[in-house]
Amino acid sequence: MAACKRLSLSAAAELLKSRDGFLILTHSSPDGDTLGAAFGLKGLLEQLGKSAEVICDEGVPTKFDFLGKAYEGTVNAEGHTVVAVDVADKKLLGDISAGLCEHCELCIDHHPTNTEYASALLLDGSASAACEVMLALAAELGVIPDKAVATALYTGIATDTGCFKYSNTTAATHLAAAELIKLGAEHEAVNRSMFETVTRGRLLLERSAYENMRYFENGLVALTVLDYEVLSSEEADASATDAVAAIPRTIEGVAVGVTLKEKEKGIFKVSVRSFLPYDASRICAELGGGGHACAAGCRLEGDRETAVAAVLQSVRKEINRNGDDR
Amino acid sequence: MAACKRLSLSAAAELLKSRDGFLILTHSSPDGDTLGAAFGLKGLLEQLGKSAEVICDEGVPTKFDFLGKAYEGTVNAEGHTVVAVDVADKKLLGDISAGLCEHCELCIDHHPTNTEYASALLLDGSASAACEVMLALAAELGVIPDKAVATALYTGIATDTGCFKYSNTTAATHLAAAELIKLGAEHEAVNRSMFETVTRGRLLLERSAYENMRYFENGLVALTVLDYEVLSSEEADASATDAVAAIPRTIEGVAVGVTLKEKEKGIFKVSVRSFLPYDASRICAELGGGGHACAAGCRLEGDRETAVAAVLQSVRKEINRNGDDR
Repeated sequence: MAACKRLSLSAAAELLKSRDGFLILTHSSPDGDTLGAAFGLKGLLEQLGKSAEVICDEGVPTKFDFLGKAYEGTVNAEGHTVVAVDVADKKLLGDISAGLCEHCELCIDHHPTNTEYASALLLDGSASAACEVMLALAAELGVIPDKAVATALYTGIATDTGCFKYSNTTAATHLAAAELIKLGAEHEAVNRSMFETVTRGRLLLERSAYENMRYFENGLVALTVLDYEVLSSEEADASATDAVAAIPRTIEGVAVGVTLKEKEKGIFKVSVRSFLPYDASRICAELGGGGHACAAGCRLEGDRETAVAAVLQSVRKEINRNGDDR
Repeated sequence: MAACKRLSLSAAAELLKSRDGFLILTHSSPDGDTLGAAFGLKGLLEQLGKSAEVICDEGVPTKFDFLGKAYEGTVNAEGHTVVAVDVADKKLLGDISAGLCEHCELCIDHHPTNTEYASALLLDGSASAACEVMLALAAELGVIPDKAVATALYTGIATDTGCFKYSNTTAATHLAAAELIKLGAEHEAVNRSMFETVTRGRLLLERSAYENMRYFENGLVALTVLDYEVLSSEEADASATDAVAAIPRTIEGVAVGVTLKEKEKGIFKVSVRSFLPYDASRICAELGGGGHACAAGCRLEGDRETAVAAVLQSVRKEINRNGDDR
């Protein structure tokens, strides 16, 4: 494959203006940003009189069905322009999208880790969301986003920033939100649906996480287990597992939060979240896993208490390594 | 008392510029907005070379101690200029502040329900927070907020909007946030402390709320009880009770959420939250209480199941009144 060409906003806009018949690829396990950017781009291209379809291998999750419908027919790249949005690596594409990937003429993204798999790349690594890049692109395209596009782009920005809570939120993110609300984005409805609604299946997981919460090292460490019985129950909302795994570290005074998820009997996926100086990736590397400094994971087999003891041993090692830093 | 004079931003700025020796009143059970506005105003006045103290009857809660220290000496209005911020009604003042209230020359607020108890009022009922009004006032004062003031004002806006999630968030709110971040507001630290940290005492209440959650009317109604044993336990975080009472309505499909809080043995404070068309104030009025259409309360005495039955009867009446609207 030829080298990936990095494009400016205006060059990306020129490329889009010169093409038609777009197929827009989203990443698998689609979230608000990849979907918001895809349907936002579809709307912008349609405002320019062009045709565009969103490809979403697994279909659009119910929660996001207000954004629009993904294309359901057979697809091939021929005669089309393939664009990927918010897809940092082609490994993140589902099977159908992966089949179109080698024809991908443009990727629009905000992940600094983008692997440059497309022929051309519009990347703003400082943007909070692909949707923030898309709003800047709309200006270059000379299109004023309509209400539906504004709502789609707002959805991506709000979800990728935890509603402007996470550290990727910048002044530019708030300016983008202000602009989208002025354009008619239905931010109240989006916020209510994304941030003020929990499923009963998630509540079940949260309840279990709270019941099993244990504290160690004078409250510096919180550890919980989502066991097989809970995770395999029909009512459990598996899509909420990651959000629930974030709970231990949110507890006051806790710097290392651990969640053991027993999706298969006797096999624990361990999620470790930490605040610096405690390094989650070191904790997990000891156990054959890896990740980032503040969020990492590993896999352990055996009975529950053996798994808990193994993780705690590694956690204590990391805490001791930091000595009196706490 | 003479009639309250409504001031424009520039008139309020002129008033502040002409005075000195400020005593700034906050409301009782102080939250991020009254404290952010008070310490923000103190900082702005100090940037103008004036002296100002914040009066906070109950002291500044630990969670907000990064904003500054409240004045701890004896106070009297003589020789001072008394200003109230985010205080809609003088009934909301603690005893010390109430003693200064009749000398209150200016109230700066965003509550449309402000009772005009001060000599003059700067009110913007469309602002998300008193801190949003304060930022506009800073411009009229000709002061560029320093980092500490920007952080204080950001705190008020973020907390009063649930981090830009609630329906009081507007384009102007996001523009204010963008400006404050550009001025150096420590939004990451504020967000982490305000929105990503839960106390163990709150977790205890949440766990109890989840354990006692019951569903009625095909899931349209969720009801939970925080019983006396939990609420009176030493570990419980009483300040989190209201937040926990909001949980039932956040559950998917739920339009009427009810929480019974048994702070005293056998006495239930009932909190009802609803989505329209279901009217929480009608539900509570039936039981001798009242409130707003979407958030209301009442008080019931007796044993737990009798209280639950009484509330459910009133809830069902309201649902039936709405017939097939559901």
